[in-house]
Amino acid sequence: MVGGGPDAFIGEVHRQAARMNGGIDIVAGNFSRHGKKSQETGRMLLLDPARIYSSYEQLAEKERRLPEGIRADFVSIVTPNNSHFPIAKTLLASGFHVMCEKPMTFTAGEARELQKLVASSGKVFGLMHNYTGYPMVKLARDMVRGGDLGEIRKIVIQYPQGWLASPVERKGSVQARWRTDPAQSGAAGALGDIGTHCENLSEYVTGLRITHVCADITTFVKGRRLDDDANCFLRFENGARGILHVSQIAIGEENNLAIWIYGAKKSLEWHQENPNSLHVKEPDGPVRIYRRGNPYVARLSTAAARATRLPFGHPEGFIEAFANVYRNFTDTIRASAALKKADPLARDFPDVNDGLRGMLFIDTVLESARNAEKWTPMLS
Amino acid sequence: MVGGGPDAFIGEVHRQAARMNGGIDIVAGNFSRHGKKSQETGRMLLLDPARIYSSYEQLAEKERRLPEGIRADFVSIVTPNNSHFPIAKTLLASGFHVMCEKPMTFTAGEARELQKLVASSGKVFGLMHNYTGYPMVKLARDMVRGGDLGEIRKIVIQYPQGWLASPVERKGSVQARWRTDPAQSGAAGALGDIGTHCENLSEYVTGLRITHVCADITTFVKGRRLDDDANCFLRFENGARGILHVSQIAIGEENNLAIWIYGAKKSLEWHQENPNSLHVKEPDGPVRIYRRGNPYVARLSTAAARATRLPFGHPEGFIEAFANVYRNFTDTIRASAALKKADPLARDFPDVNDGLRGMLFIDTVLESARNAEKWTPMLS
Amino acid sequence: MVGGGPDAFIGEVHRQAARMNGGIDIVAGNFSRHGKKSQETGRMLLLDPARIYSSYEQLAEKERRLPEGIRADFVSIVTPNNSHFPIAKTLLASGFHVMCEKPMTFTAGEARELQKLVASSGKVFGLMHNYTGYPMVKLARDMVRGGDLGEIRKIVIQYPQGWLASPVERKGSVQARWRTDPAQSGAAGALGDIGTHCENLSEYVTGLRITHVCADITTFVKGRRLDDDANCFLRFENGARGILHVSQIAIGEENNLAIWIYGAKKSLEWHQENPNSLHVKEPDGPVRIYRRGNPYVARLSTAAARATRLPFGHPEGFIEAFANVYRNFTDTIRASAALKKADPLARDFPDVNDGLRGMLFIDTVLESARNAEKWTPMLS
Amino acid sequence: MVGGGPDAFIGEVHRQAARMNGGIDIVAGNFSRHGKKSQETGRMLLLDPARIYSSYEQLAEKERRLPEGIRADFVSIVTPNNSHFPIAKTLLASGFHVMCEKPMTFTAGEARELQKLVASSGKVFGLMHNYTGYPMVKLARDMVRGGDLGEIRKIVIQYPQGWLASPVERKGSVQARWRTDPAQSGAAGALGDIGTHCENLSEYVTGLRITHVCADITTFVKGRRLDDDANCFLRFENGARGILHVSQIAIGEENNLAIWIYGAKKSLEWHQENPNSLHVKEPDGPVRIYRRGNPYVARLSTAAARATRLPFGHPEGFIEAFANVYRNFTDTIRASAALKKADPLARDFPDVNDGLRGMLFIDTVLESARNAEKWTPMLS
Repeated sequence: MVGGGPDAFIGEVHRQAARMNGGIDIVAGNFSRHGKKSQETGRMLLLDPARIYSSYEQLAEKERRLPEGIRADFVSIVTPNNSHFPIAKTLLASGFHVMCEKPMTFTAGEARELQKLVASSGKVFGLMHNYTGYPMVKLARDMVRGGDLGEIRKIVIQYPQGWLASPVERKGSVQARWRTDPAQSGAAGALGDIGTHCENLSEYVTGLRITHVCADITTFVKGRRLDDDANCFLRFENGARGILHVSQIAIGEENNLAIWIYGAKKSLEWHQENPNSLHVKEPDGPVRIYRRGNPYVARLSTAAARATRLPFGHPEGFIEAFANVYRNFTDTIRASAALKKADPLARDFPDVNDGLRGMLFIDTVLESARNAEKWTPMLS
Repeated sequence: MVGGGPDAFIGEVHRQAARMNGGIDIVAGNFSRHGKKSQETGRMLLLDPARIYSSYEQLAEKERRLPEGIRADFVSIVTPNNSHFPIAKTLLASGFHVMCEKPMTFTAGEARELQKLVASSGKVFGLMHNYTGYPMVKLARDMVRGGDLGEIRKIVIQYPQGWLASPVERKGSVQARWRTDPAQSGAAGALGDIGTHCENLSEYVTGLRITHVCADITTFVKGRRLDDDANCFLRFENGARGILHVSQIAIGEENNLAIWIYGAKKSLEWHQENPNSLHVKEPDGPVRIYRRGNPYVARLSTAAARATRLPFGHPEGFIEAFANVYRNFTDTIRASAALKKADPLARDFPDVNDGLRGMLFIDTVLESARNAEKWTPMLS
Repeated sequence: MVGGGPDAFIGEVHRQAARMNGGIDIVAGNFSRHGKKSQETGRMLLLDPARIYSSYEQLAEKERRLPEGIRADFVSIVTPNNSHFPIAKTLLASGFHVMCEKPMTFTAGEARELQKLVASSGKVFGLMHNYTGYPMVKLARDMVRGGDLGEIRKIVIQYPQGWLASPVERKGSVQARWRTDPAQSGAAGALGDIGTHCENLSEYVTGLRITHVCADITTFVKGRRLDDDANCFLRFENGARGILHVSQIAIGEENNLAIWIYGAKKSLEWHQENPNSLHVKEPDGPVRIYRRGNPYVARLSTAAARATRLPFGHPEGFIEAFANVYRNFTDTIRASAALKKADPLARDFPDVNDGLRGMLFIDTVLESARNAEKWTPMLS
Repeated sequence: MVGGGPDAFIGEVHRQAARMNGGIDIVAGNFSRHGKKSQETGRMLLLDPARIYSSYEQLAEKERRLPEGIRADFVSIVTPNNSHFPIAKTLLASGFHVMCEKPMTFTAGEARELQKLVASSGKVFGLMHNYTGYPMVKLARDMVRGGDLGEIRKIVIQYPQGWLASPVERKGSVQARWRTDPAQSGAAGALGDIGTHCENLSEYVTGLRITHVCADITTFVKGRRLDDDANCFLRFENGARGILHVSQIAIGEENNLAIWIYGAKKSLEWHQENPNSLHVKEPDGPVRIYRRGNPYVARLSTAAARATRLPFGHPEGFIEAFANVYRNFTDTIRASAALKKADPLARDFPDVNDGLRGMLFIDTVLESARNAEKWTPMLS
């Protein structure tokens, strides 16, 4: 692992999620750019002190020399956005599979280059768009792509949060500080952090590509240098219309990611904070609530069944979705190690192409926000 | 009453709502342009046959000659949009107070003229934006305008419906037929029918005026001549951002009108289909659900208390909100009859200015939809 | 109307509900035992002063002499429980149809006598168990009685309230005062006021009779003379088990009446505070939410459709359910006036037999509460 | 681990939950009484084949001889109820700490003996009443025990499930087979499996002991030999009343464990299927929804904060609660290894005393169910 030191949040989530799966253990890491902090975290994790590194270059260099079976099989990158690319590049070049936090890179240019590097490396590259790991998201995807909803007409997706409604980055919040700092986060704030989740989830579920964007983005908190609110109209390749809105100043909202998909025959609705249910609606019949873990769900979606760990009624949450992305990623690595083609169900995890797509989305939205014209075509 | 014959929907709602209040009774009407249908409805309502009219002109002419105390005090207009203006004009000229369905007129030009006619007539004119009649909407308004939420930053308002997801206007639905017919409805479909409710509600609750619109409107059902889906970004006079989206093709949605208002200090959320609750959120405290009919609500909002008919726990719904608009309207008429100034609480009902505002909103959105430019200033 | 004066709650509900229906108007009343208060309320209702009476005997005596078409067709009794019987007896004897609040009488003995009086009078007698008037309750009844759920196994019904959690009867609440006074309410407190609603609703929906009761009743507030909390196990004639629990000390609960019915094939769930939905569950399929006003509901239940006033999505509430009981009651009166047999759909309102049943339930529960034995057979 | 072979459910949950915590790894096991099945599971878990045992006696015997640091520190028992006691006895005698599934033993007699064995062994014994591990349950406990609700008056607790509504034990369900078999489960069915969770949770949250029980238990599915539905009235030591009802024939219910606690000052409500929220109600104020992971929760309950792994809005579920029980259990073992007194916060996990309490509850309820008398005192 690179990143995930004492002040981090997502690194520990990666560790818990990966561990849940079994057969995955953390063996080495560079947890901070500060050697001492890196040591501190590594020791807390009971790592061999020799494998707690003070830089990612050192990690790459030393680990690659260890014998197979001992050396790390893959490395997770959980640092701020600006360092994803150089770290990933180094790791791929050193022969490691890579799991990377989103947004994938600092710029779209880096993302394009990374796409090529992954292709030429032959390594497995995963991107942590964790929300695609929820079983009911997979059921939604299989229903939509299987045609149950008919032609898709309208998609509404939102991700309001409230934690940045005041300038907490100036009051000691480490999380807030790097996320609102253009030098670490890149050109986008809320848009990059949570807007890309919306872009990814809407394309993942529908299989439709966004072709045009019309954006209105705002920074509400004075002195903040990145957007904390972003609203977009979307057009999809089949003519479907979309609304995507995210915010970090929406007081009282936690992680209220939700998606509504309206087709010509049916519609559906899913809420991340109530992830074990999927609401499906039809023109002249009762609303149906599909509930995770039931046999009827398994009959409709093998992917949902595979992503299910507990029987119905035992609520699953964020960590299982996260762990599901890891499981598919590592199953694909194992297949690759065995020179086998991975099960298509295992290859169901976000990858470098999704990462590039996210970076292009950010750039398109930012361009649209500057444009006086209504519609900006999606960059490619 | 003008309109509200055998195939109508909203006319009967007006009658039930007005009757609930007590002290209001229907005494005369022209319920259809077809004399026979008008008679049919009038007799069902046990009216004096002599006061069941075959045209609104006849109603105006005959009723005005009846002695005070016998003749109708006010007339409700519940016809399709295209006839609102001529009917209202005739009734005002004949000395009647008028309650009118929304959207107020067929064109903004008519609305401007009606505004003048009302002013010169000295009569009371009410517009049936019924959603403003809900107690919890009044509580929301009093909290927002009283500054509880701090400076308003973002408003999200939606009104998805699904009943026009297929071309039911060609399958015998009378309601669908006139609402999708430009000759009867005007230039806007979903936008006029339910979009104006959103515009009205967002301005009612916040007291902020929309200054700019960016719209994306669509007709999804082939062969339909008016929009059945409309999405708008809004800018408000204080710099607040807004998203307004309505649809009539959102399968499974009933009347899912909902509003979220995010301020710098707090936020709130209200859902028309669950109207007895108002969710209020703050930065570091539990979510609060305010429930209609409780003493603590009355302490916060006299208007909410006045609009409350039943104790907490006995759910109130659509009809009470509707009746509340009527009660304030008729209380104002009574004050006017007594040459008194109406209680400000009674004057809390939508009027001709709101109606003009709605017509301007429609025209602005339609212009924006045609524009390649992102922002269109609100017409005036 | 008898009762419903200045301090009353339910009288005004009766008036609003009856008026909504159209074709019903209040023409006379004795609104209080205090002549002055009766006058005050009657004048507020714009009644002919000659028909505002100072006692129910006077009302019965004077109204009966008025010519048909002028005199009241029926009289609603909305006084405290202790006076229901003598008033009803007098009114029936004077030739009036009667609508009575629940619990029907002060004692089961009175109820038995009233049952005979109604039978011999040939008059229509309605009892205001208003919750049976909800459309989704009628759908539930039709589904259960139609066999959709299979053999009924278990019924859970609750009605928690919190408004009597402290001794408000000693702090000026008129409503609380008479409801906690044995001299006015009878032998039961929460049990009589809301427990009878549960008994009635469970028998109404299932068509099954309670045969045995095991009760635990408590008075939590010191100095209170009637129960404020009652819990019962029930046995039904088919062997089904039941749990019925009501409370008036359940802080924060408003009128949280809810019922769960579990059959051998399906189950259902309904909540009075969210009355437009009915949840239906099956062994291996999604939860279905049936929503009031939809065509598929009308296809399943003519009674539900008949009890529906507004299209789906326009929430109906307490007042419409109340008005539905009145409508069936008055339709039955009209049929009786026309010497016709009322439509079975119109005869769907609670009557004197339900009232007797309620009084027997109260007595059975009170006996059980005193018993050291577990099961007490339902009195008859 | 003992148990948790190929057909098991809860064993894998124990493994995932324990692993999430970090610092815990499974090193040995006897996963089935069938050596081959035990091997199969052990190999799937990548265990050293020498430490996959074919009986628990073998496991105890061989592991105890391994050097400290290599041998298992504790053993989890996840077998059917009838074998818990002999296994636990053997393991304690061999010097292992023990985590055991509930209900703790086959009979209350065994439970009493186990209580003594644990005391004399000096080992740490945990019982997997996992629902006590939820952060919002800990908040509820701290609020109730801290006096926020005032004197507790009434407790309603339920755990309806529907999975045994038909005789699935005769259609190949392994889970159903042993749970409905008196030889493996003991004298109680639903009562033992889920009723004990209710008993445990209500005493855990309130700190009040049940003193009397009045029970009505039923077997609805023909041919089944244990109860599948159990309803109880409870009396608590302070005079509070309770209703506890569980079912396995409640079609459509998953794991709908929920608790309502009504005090003289406030009340609260928690639902296991929506575990990140706790509803708190007061006499004249809005309903408050406390949400897991927020700073205001941490300020109210150190135990809730300690049991929280993810920030608010990232839903936690069943597995985290489970893992929290493990964490406190293992932290206590670590303290014990270091000859330290464990942090009181770490000692917050169900133990042998809770297990005995559960067995006594089962016996009391069964006795009450046989009794014609209403109340049966809690056995001790």
